Amino acid sequence: MRHVMCVLVENRPGVLAHISGLFSSRGYNIDSLAVGRTENPNISRMTIVVDGDEVILEQIRKQLERLVPVLRVTDFYGQEYVERDLMLVKVAATPAKRLELMGLVDVFRAKVVHVGAREMIIEVSGTEDKLEAMVELLASYGIKELVRTGTVAMLRGNGG
Amino acid sequence: MRHVMCVLVENRPGVLAHISGLFSSRGYNIDSLAVGRTENPNISRMTIVVDGDEVILEQIRKQLERLVPVLRVTDFYGQEYVERDLMLVKVAATPAKRLELMGLVDVFRAKVVHVGAREMIIEVSGTEDKLEAMVELLASYGIKELVRTGTVAMLRGNGG
Repeated sequence: MRHVMCVLVENRPGVLAHISGLFSSRGYNIDSLAVGRTENPNISRMTIVVDGDEVILEQIRKQLERLVPVLRVTDFYGQEYVERDLMLVKVAATPAKRLELMGLVDVFRAKVVHVGAREMIIEVSGTEDKLEAMVELLASYGIKELVRTGTVAMLRGNGG
Repeated sequence: MRHVMCVLVENRPGVLAHISGLFSSRGYNIDSLAVGRTENPNISRMTIVVDGDEVILEQIRKQLERLVPVLRVTDFYGQEYVERDLMLVKVAATPAKRLELMGLVDVFRAKVVHVGAREMIIEVSGTEDKLEAMVELLASYGIKELVRTGTVAMLRGNGG
């Protein structure tokens, strides 16, 4: 089952290696991981998306909670939350194809962030499904390069 | 000096722990890190933002290149590139404050992704500077929660 987890950690060297090591030592592959700042400069927030055995995941969650730099672990599974992933795609775009591509950009509420003689960089955010739908449509134009942030998520309502 | 690095890796357990360990074993703190899929399901792309000693960073870069699952390391320093970070912010929003907040959302080309009785979740993407400017403005309303993906980046033009 796919799980999205939020881990609040103290911002110090080694935390990331330690946490990612917990997953890999059990052969658990991380689908995506994003580590960014929060409103507090001493605290980082990691969003981890994993897919695999529930029992092992629960063991990992408990081990995470015991780590000193870990302040809180939240598994969003079964809760109401918003999730977003951001993607930059460099797609082949001759002048003749530009207008067609810009139509797609509008439909996906995406943005053109760079236009070159033979290529275009498009920025789009949304759920994983939305990004995958866009990748599928852009593939026929020729994707030269693609980068994604990985998912970040937040509970609806007032809960953390 | 701030460096944005792109690391293409084979998608297998342990790669992330290995790479983040290289940085932390030298006491090098990672500002932000994003790991997401690419157009090839076997390859992930990591974007790492670091700030610190140039000599040590160059050593780390060389060590990274020697790791088997690492396919390519690119340091964007001094090159022309686009960078984006995505943020979800849960901000206190009584009905009386909603309109005012939506004005800010427009100015920053952000999006409201959830509205509750007393809070709102706003999605915004841009450079780190833009996100920080928005955080500063939202702070006076009361930030309840904040998550960022960390930076992703892409060279302009046809280079990788």
